[in-house]
Amino acid sequence: MSHNESAPAGLPVQVKILPEERVVQVPACSTVRQAALAAGIELKSSCGGDGTCGRCRFRLRSGEVQEGHTGKLTAAEREQGWRLACQARVLWDVVVEIPATSRLTRHQILVGRRWEKAGDLQEREEEAVADLEPLYQEEELQLPPPNAADPSADATRLLDALQRRRPQAEFVLPPALLRQIPAALRSADWRVRVGLVEVGPDRWEVARVLPAAAAAPNLGLAVDIGTTTVVVQLVDLLDGRTLASQGTYNLQAHFGDDVISRIVHSEEDPDGLQHLQRAVVQTLNGLIDAVLQESGAERQDIQAVAYAGNTTMTHLFLGVPAAYLRRDPYVPAFAVPPLARAGELGLKLAPQVPLWGHPAVGSYVGGDIVAGVLATGVHKTPALTLFVDIGTNGEIVVGNQEWLMACACSAGPAFEGGGIKHGMRAMTGAIERIRVQPERDEVAYQTVGGQAPQGICGSGLIDALATLRESGIIDRSGNLVAGGSRRLRPSPDAGMEYVLAWAHESGTGQDITLTQADVKNLLRAKGAIYAGIRTLLAMVELPPEALEQALIAGGFGNYLNIHDAMAIGLLPDLPPERYQYVGNSSLAGARLALLSRQARQEALEIARRITYVDLSSAPSYMEEFVSALFLPHTDFSQFPRVLGKLA
Amino acid sequence: MSHNESAPAGLPVQVKILPEERVVQVPACSTVRQAALAAGIELKSSCGGDGTCGRCRFRLRSGEVQEGHTGKLTAAEREQGWRLACQARVLWDVVVEIPATSRLTRHQILVGRRWEKAGDLQEREEEAVADLEPLYQEEELQLPPPNAADPSADATRLLDALQRRRPQAEFVLPPALLRQIPAALRSADWRVRVGLVEVGPDRWEVARVLPAAAAAPNLGLAVDIGTTTVVVQLVDLLDGRTLASQGTYNLQAHFGDDVISRIVHSEEDPDGLQHLQRAVVQTLNGLIDAVLQESGAERQDIQAVAYAGNTTMTHLFLGVPAAYLRRDPYVPAFAVPPLARAGELGLKLAPQVPLWGHPAVGSYVGGDIVAGVLATGVHKTPALTLFVDIGTNGEIVVGNQEWLMACACSAGPAFEGGGIKHGMRAMTGAIERIRVQPERDEVAYQTVGGQAPQGICGSGLIDALATLRESGIIDRSGNLVAGGSRRLRPSPDAGMEYVLAWAHESGTGQDITLTQADVKNLLRAKGAIYAGIRTLLAMVELPPEALEQALIAGGFGNYLNIHDAMAIGLLPDLPPERYQYVGNSSLAGARLALLSRQARQEALEIARRITYVDLSSAPSYMEEFVSALFLPHTDFSQFPRVLGKLA
Repeated sequence: MSHNESAPAGLPVQVKILPEERVVQVPACSTVRQAALAAGIELKSSCGGDGTCGRCRFRLRSGEVQEGHTGKLTAAEREQGWRLACQARVLWDVVVEIPATSRLTRHQILVGRRWEKAGDLQEREEEAVADLEPLYQEEELQLPPPNAADPSADATRLLDALQRRRPQAEFVLPPALLRQIPAALRSADWRVRVGLVEVGPDRWEVARVLPAAAAAPNLGLAVDIGTTTVVVQLVDLLDGRTLASQGTYNLQAHFGDDVISRIVHSEEDPDGLQHLQRAVVQTLNGLIDAVLQESGAERQDIQAVAYAGNTTMTHLFLGVPAAYLRRDPYVPAFAVPPLARAGELGLKLAPQVPLWGHPAVGSYVGGDIVAGVLATGVHKTPALTLFVDIGTNGEIVVGNQEWLMACACSAGPAFEGGGIKHGMRAMTGAIERIRVQPERDEVAYQTVGGQAPQGICGSGLIDALATLRESGIIDRSGNLVAGGSRRLRPSPDAGMEYVLAWAHESGTGQDITLTQADVKNLLRAKGAIYAGIRTLLAMVELPPEALEQALIAGGFGNYLNIHDAMAIGLLPDLPPERYQYVGNSSLAGARLALLSRQARQEALEIARRITYVDLSSAPSYMEEFVSALFLPHTDFSQFPRVLGKLA
Repeated sequence: MSHNESAPAGLPVQVKILPEERVVQVPACSTVRQAALAAGIELKSSCGGDGTCGRCRFRLRSGEVQEGHTGKLTAAEREQGWRLACQARVLWDVVVEIPATSRLTRHQILVGRRWEKAGDLQEREEEAVADLEPLYQEEELQLPPPNAADPSADATRLLDALQRRRPQAEFVLPPALLRQIPAALRSADWRVRVGLVEVGPDRWEVARVLPAAAAAPNLGLAVDIGTTTVVVQLVDLLDGRTLASQGTYNLQAHFGDDVISRIVHSEEDPDGLQHLQRAVVQTLNGLIDAVLQESGAERQDIQAVAYAGNTTMTHLFLGVPAAYLRRDPYVPAFAVPPLARAGELGLKLAPQVPLWGHPAVGSYVGGDIVAGVLATGVHKTPALTLFVDIGTNGEIVVGNQEWLMACACSAGPAFEGGGIKHGMRAMTGAIERIRVQPERDEVAYQTVGGQAPQGICGSGLIDALATLRESGIIDRSGNLVAGGSRRLRPSPDAGMEYVLAWAHESGTGQDITLTQADVKNLLRAKGAIYAGIRTLLAMVELPPEALEQALIAGGFGNYLNIHDAMAIGLLPDLPPERYQYVGNSSLAGARLALLSRQARQEALEIARRITYVDLSSAPSYMEEFVSALFLPHTDFSQFPRVLGKLA
């Protein structure tokens, strides 16, 4: 919650929110936006609460509100009770209706709040919801009952009605469903809801036939299968709303931290591939349980899954041998995942539930990157765009609506907390922001959820590096340099370490530290990514300044401090307004594919369009990497803004 | 073997037949046709061995033959060694090569030898074999091995190569197969044979990927699922040759003789549908074992199945509830069977093997009739054609290339031996031809396989009725009338019976008789079919004489005596040359569909084109039926030829 949204103190007022009929008490003079937040409902905004964008509109159903700006609302709309949630302050009890179109459908863990400015990501999601064409759809049909003059077969009757509804489409009726058709049609008295799964371009499999009266939710899962973390979002396929989202560590980590060690396990152990396939399925099954519990939804209402993952994750998820991904010339078994079924992979869903996967570009630029490009619209913008996804690997895309190039660099899992002594993912208790106050030898930090710190996540690590460098505790080469701080001490492991939080304030009962080894790991990770960006730009003969837009994706949680990311030399030194933190864009792309046929088709095009560049064959990459192992860099001229600010 | 083919006696000569390298010894002066028959190889012929049709051509590879007519062979062909098997007589040892195109691919049990004249059926089979486009096909591909410049995915590489080979087709790669792709391509050193199954109009599923070097047979099964009998034919998909064929009783008979009693069982017993589904699958599994044993082929080489059956049989085979087939307005669950897989039905074949089924017209005109129309070409001929399939029910089609109408009549299984005291199907020991010699009170008969009689089959029953009527032992009303014959005696059951074969000559140790009840059953069966033909013709306002062609199908075995069938009033009294006995046309249609894409498409068109006529709503049907319960009929004027001959 940002500062301008803090609620006033004072007498309590009741706000009842429709359609869920949720009642919250807020201090008088709170905005409706604040009341909604108190009820757990985040509203859209691209003006930051200035009353100018008009996105947070709601409808006053009972009572009065005190108003500021009326923004883009017309007189007619105001007549109908429309108001702006950021401007309307409650003085008395009110009843308000907040439409789905005003609600932010992304959950914190999934697509972090955007850094500094609203942009393409939100626009694209709204677009997808507007042309809602999910992977699973239903049609309600009134079939003519058969009689002596028209004794055509049940299946023919059903398929003919579908064909009349969608003349261009092709329909498939699987044998298993056929067995239920005679009873299903008659028990529904020929008025049915037909569930359809898109199995090819405008080719639909009849997945179920229900009485029209027995309306049930249509739910789907958007899934991001990361090497380190896996996230599942439960989505309402009828309106695109997100009902729940949960993330956790990928249980495959038991068999190795990075993709290479997992591929090795899959090859060396005769059951290795099965171990890895089961581990990710077990991870997903746990997350499915969790989203069902969070939302109160029913498992049987989940009808479709769309997922995105890197190429290794996609192979292992489908149980396809990944051996050749790590051998020259690095060939995947497949680029476009075939439509799989929940039953064949062991997911705890109805066995026929379809699993649609984002296509890959190659072995090292996978479906997660295609999903990210899709979600952020790089492939559709005229602006020259840099897209960087910082996960266990770092993948980089440069391009626009005309052309797209991509590369991958082995950054390692440092920014996901991997290989860092007190590293953790961006979950409750993770230090996500941190600032050293050298004059008082104190450290100010903020944790996810405001709990006592358990460790430090990616955004905290970037902050920590930047602030320790700024305060001189780390030198240009990344050494922790002895000085006046009592927080700096020899590490029990080796070298020095810096205490970020003392045992008495931590949630673990132990000091939370950043060690010399951690700093070196972070330098290698940020150096790999920066060198990748430089190399890719050099190949297309563009200076970093030519980038009109830079989109940073990753599982950093709520936010990523782009200033600090530039200060440590992870990201090129560009005017900050060109940057945008887009959160988990792989998940956002999976969600788009789940909801939009257009998006599914675009994903295939994106995968075909992206040209892959192999950094290992680029002669300048190693040189760039070595130069980037400094804070921010050996070449100061590449960071004029950062250094100007320091100076 | 007909009389003109009996082999001469004398010194033995060796004939070696290529390509199988089979060696047979035959008496000198035998024809090559006789030598081939001795080796179990039946040759084509439409001239009956006169040396004029040129269908039995072979190539002389070594030695000399004595020749009669040289028929249609050109000088150039003779130069190349081509001769006619019916004309070439062997005097010394020879080596001959008999091409597949000269071989009769139909087995006796499947499509009986044609009555009187060769015709459409054989022509159509040759056509199908010529444009061989089986349900399962293979493509041999040399894939470019991947390298750094072309690291595209294995599946992409494979699918791209297939697409180049077949630019119009669409390909699907199922997840289960994807798992085998990386190893399959590399172990084959990128030179592969790809198995393809047609899963939709020019849409192909990749079924397997093998090293190109490991060539294996491509086999398929053509299946006729009859209510009483089931027949399986093992077919070589590469050249259309029939390798084996086996028929047996449908084990579903345990649950009722006719379709209605089986549907009742499927409804009344909670496991009834499963019983029936398993019974037919068990029947098929036994027949699959038998054709494999007969041919020596390997089970894993069977890659596709095409079947035809009536609508009830098709429902029960796929495990689809058939309840509404027997309830007004008689609606099937489906008309076009979805492509099923061997695994889901429990067939002992590789689980992914596709099962293609002939589409039905409606509840009482099923896929077996569509298959029969396809096999006999009724839908393509300009000649007004009557097609009658005499099985457990009698189905009748009238029409030509312009229009097609069909009806079904409940004839009962009498012509398959059902409900007849000593009835049996046309298998070894069945009396298939019979003639009473009243002056000597003797009976001359012929059995299938020449064994001692076990019972009497359909063609024998038709003969028996005709000859008993002709000799006055049965009167016009079907009564066995007391006379001078010692073979006529009171039956232990009720009424009289006539002894066809005495216990001492029979294979059962008992007298084989035809009882009064048998005769009445046969009258009802033949009356139902004749009344159906009359009613259908009346509806289109055509006299029987307008029929230019009449094709009679059924499981009668080797032959059907059309004269006798007319004499008893089963078939309309037409000039005999208009008739043709086409044997098991349902099986022939299944085989065509297995082998030809064109045939599969035509089957769908035929099912759509046939207009179904409900006899139960035709006011004249009952009247026609009652009039037909006489020998041949109450109305003599309908049988001028039959009665003229009698007179």
